[in-house]
Amino acid sequence: MEQLTTPASAGRPRDETVGQRALAAAREVFAQRGWFGTSYDEVAKRAGVGKSSLYLRWPTKADLVIAAVTPATEFAAANTGTVRGDLIELGEALLAAHWSGEGVATLRFAAESPHVQELRDAASKVAHSDTLQLVRRIVRRGITRGELPAGCSPALINDMLAGALMSHAIAALAPRTAASRAKSTAYVQLLVDAVIAGASAQG
Amino acid sequence: MEQLTTPASAGRPRDETVGQRALAAAREVFAQRGWFGTSYDEVAKRAGVGKSSLYLRWPTKADLVIAAVTPATEFAAANTGTVRGDLIELGEALLAAHWSGEGVATLRFAAESPHVQELRDAASKVAHSDTLQLVRRIVRRGITRGELPAGCSPALINDMLAGALMSHAIAALAPRTAASRAKSTAYVQLLVDAVIAGASAQG
Repeated sequence: MEQLTTPASAGRPRDETVGQRALAAAREVFAQRGWFGTSYDEVAKRAGVGKSSLYLRWPTKADLVIAAVTPATEFAAANTGTVRGDLIELGEALLAAHWSGEGVATLRFAAESPHVQELRDAASKVAHSDTLQLVRRIVRRGITRGELPAGCSPALINDMLAGALMSHAIAALAPRTAASRAKSTAYVQLLVDAVIAGASAQG
Repeated sequence: MEQLTTPASAGRPRDETVGQRALAAAREVFAQRGWFGTSYDEVAKRAGVGKSSLYLRWPTKADLVIAAVTPATEFAAANTGTVRGDLIELGEALLAAHWSGEGVATLRFAAESPHVQELRDAASKVAHSDTLQLVRRIVRRGITRGELPAGCSPALINDMLAGALMSHAIAALAPRTAASRAKSTAYVQLLVDAVIAGASAQG
């Protein structure tokens, strides 16, 4: 652990924290209140930072919201050796993200961005299809190993997995006990088995 | 066509129209702007009705929003004779509802209601699980006919069908040409085949 102690760089790690706190607060405000309910004032208050430092980093509200909904969760590119193992890992991560509130911000962005000019203009900056990219990689490896037919569609597999988990996360509450966590794990496994069977029939 | 011409009842059909116009406008405003962006003023303006007639029908903003997001589309309980035919009909109807803007209002309600006290209090009034009820009926008939294994889960089938279509509707634009309509129909059929294969493997 090398430490930088020159005065010029001493402030930087602190600045990094300000940015992260601000984005977490902006994600929370946007998830709870949406575009019209989100303000620099409220984000600055919840993050405990000055409004001017928000304006410096994100000159417009659209910049701030876009940065806030850009996935903070980097889904690990699971490589367990089987399609089933990879999709279960991805599914668990997606469900956890939905229940963390990050998923609500994403849902809301999907609902609002077509109707808000500023968001629509900037929306192309958001790395939307992260999940689809991961599913593509998982499916490609599965086809190479002969686990999936060459003709199956990664987009359909992604819709069935990610869409079903969205629907499940909306209908079910985040698990709070060991029993409900086990139930949630069992759900993901059941879903992945069904998705694989569905994809295999596509050949 | 019998016409009622007594003065007392002559106004009623017109009132009915006011209510429908108001709900359509409220659904549109809520879909575009969410809870914080929805006001009686804006709804009255878009519907071309007086604010007082809105307050008479829906005394609180929560009442108005809840009435607006209660599904206007009554999904016909398809009974084509096969699980495949029934799920394709339901899938087409769900996709059309998503693209009509009604789906956006529902998405937004799912995202906002956990965070807005007034909506949370009244949310139990919304008939959420209409789709699940229909899927339950379709699955029950499929099991009776021997098309599906007795152990398959209607909730999982509903998540895979309705969730995938939600994910698809968010990623893809509503079709505007005959070619893109054909592509959308082909997508629903491919999805339903995959969902049935997945459900059949559950046995």
